[in-house]
Amino acid sequence: MPKAWHLKSRPDGMPSADKFELKDIDLPSVAEDMIRVRNGWLSVDPYMRGRMNDVKSYVPPFQLGQPMEGGAVGEVVESRAEGFAPGDLVLHMGGWRDEAVVPAQAARKLPELGAEPQQFLGILGTTGATAYFGLLDVASAKEGDIVFVSAAAGAVGSAAVQIAKAKRMTVIGSAGGEQKCDYVRALGADAVIDYRAGDLLRSLSGAAPQGIDVYFDNVGGDHLDAALAVARNYARFAICGMIEGYNKREPTSLRFLMRVIAARIRIQGFLVFDYQSRMDEFYRDMGAWLKTGAVKSRETVVEGLEQTPEAFLGLFKGANVGKMLVKL
Amino acid sequence: MPKAWHLKSRPDGMPSADKFELKDIDLPSVAEDMIRVRNGWLSVDPYMRGRMNDVKSYVPPFQLGQPMEGGAVGEVVESRAEGFAPGDLVLHMGGWRDEAVVPAQAARKLPELGAEPQQFLGILGTTGATAYFGLLDVASAKEGDIVFVSAAAGAVGSAAVQIAKAKRMTVIGSAGGEQKCDYVRALGADAVIDYRAGDLLRSLSGAAPQGIDVYFDNVGGDHLDAALAVARNYARFAICGMIEGYNKREPTSLRFLMRVIAARIRIQGFLVFDYQSRMDEFYRDMGAWLKTGAVKSRETVVEGLEQTPEAFLGLFKGANVGKMLVKL
Repeated sequence: MPKAWHLKSRPDGMPSADKFELKDIDLPSVAEDMIRVRNGWLSVDPYMRGRMNDVKSYVPPFQLGQPMEGGAVGEVVESRAEGFAPGDLVLHMGGWRDEAVVPAQAARKLPELGAEPQQFLGILGTTGATAYFGLLDVASAKEGDIVFVSAAAGAVGSAAVQIAKAKRMTVIGSAGGEQKCDYVRALGADAVIDYRAGDLLRSLSGAAPQGIDVYFDNVGGDHLDAALAVARNYARFAICGMIEGYNKREPTSLRFLMRVIAARIRIQGFLVFDYQSRMDEFYRDMGAWLKTGAVKSRETVVEGLEQTPEAFLGLFKGANVGKMLVKL
Repeated sequence: MPKAWHLKSRPDGMPSADKFELKDIDLPSVAEDMIRVRNGWLSVDPYMRGRMNDVKSYVPPFQLGQPMEGGAVGEVVESRAEGFAPGDLVLHMGGWRDEAVVPAQAARKLPELGAEPQQFLGILGTTGATAYFGLLDVASAKEGDIVFVSAAAGAVGSAAVQIAKAKRMTVIGSAGGEQKCDYVRALGADAVIDYRAGDLLRSLSGAAPQGIDVYFDNVGGDHLDAALAVARNYARFAICGMIEGYNKREPTSLRFLMRVIAARIRIQGFLVFDYQSRMDEFYRDMGAWLKTGAVKSRETVVEGLEQTPEAFLGLFKGANVGKMLVKL
């Protein structure tokens, strides 16, 4: 009998394991244009925390008592959809469960890139695509640019650092603590700032004496302000996340916002979902970088469907290095 | 003997008339590729206050004891430059004086638009071009968009309102006080907000129940924050000025900055000087709008070179409606 994790009650603040319940599910029969998939890998991601609140956002909230969803990679075991056959490996959103029936339209056959299937949930998935399109499209970053990446040891940040180096940019990364800074240095960053040690703006000015052309923002707040302070003319900021503000209610305070005018700075927020139609570009480049070793992926793997909530909760305890995955 | 206003000493805070001195000048002889111009109209603008400080910005500071500069329109009286002949009317930067010798490259013959010459210092000059390129290029505003313009009774703001209406957009303007609000309404704005009366965000939400696609920012601060709060997906903000912050040292405090991500908002600062090569587009459209009456220009005229400092100082006392000009 297939099983799926259900949201039992909505967490308030940090979630705990008792909010989730593993229950048998009745899979619908496979109708026309549908496929049945046996999952091999599940993704757990920080953004899922937002879906546990009953708040409208760019993704609808999880419904109480209903099976949860998320990125998953699995093998087609039954198909009534053109172009999908048993044995095909697919990426889809029917995660948090071992088996799913999904519309073929909402599934994507894994491209032949010689990559491991689970990489399509990380460096070849949303994480990698966010870094790729954020840096190259939203921020129009190009060879020779001086790029600042905040939270550079994070999943998206570390991908952004490596993509920037693969494209021959100068990269400054920020991270908290010596160990994470060492990791960012090992990724190839030209300079690394420990935001826990000393004044951030002074550190950034020192690391980027000529200023920056691009800022890839995962943090907001002080990081964004420092980036505004040192931005060169026509700098472009891709705003991917502002984790500094996720858990507090105070407004963002910016001393250097007025520089957007004299320096003609462009600040652009984005969601990777808007780039679905351009994933082929991403697969082509990222596939090549993985092959040559220009980009390396790191994963933390937890085994067994039963462990899915633990894997998810681990995201907020620093239990992962790189992408957190569940292997079934 | 030609005369020019010189900066005698640098003002601290609000400038006063004793900082300026009118003195005879020795004009150089007209070398190759130069022209001599007898000025008919001088422009005085708020940005000139910044040039009186000894601070590097996007325009160099005025030098103490040297003739000042600024926009001017005059008649060529001597030319050693191809394409310029005595009698031609030109726009140039040799203002704050009655006669100037300038490189022909830095002068522009007034296009034949059937407009008054002094309009090239206002609605057909920097003021109008700032509104035009800020709205249509920087903010990519187009027919059907809902546009919010702050300081809509100001020189640039009132031009932006009229251009937006000429292009069939829905326009909400903000201004301070009943009289200015009436003026903005008379310009054709669909809704007007008095920012001195009541909570700005509540007023804007009421005036734009469907949100806004475009924000033309002359103010910054609370206005920018309210615009972030009500922005629709893919909204574009053109940041022209942030006058709220010009005279205070506190940082800008934004409660709704994080909306840039989920709503994919683009915030772009700009300077009109970057659009010099595209002035023909502007002349073509604005010339046509002035002819049909779709856009109207307002001017306040002060007479006589001796009155130039008074005209300039009047800018900070609300002495002008529309563009402030000096007629020689």
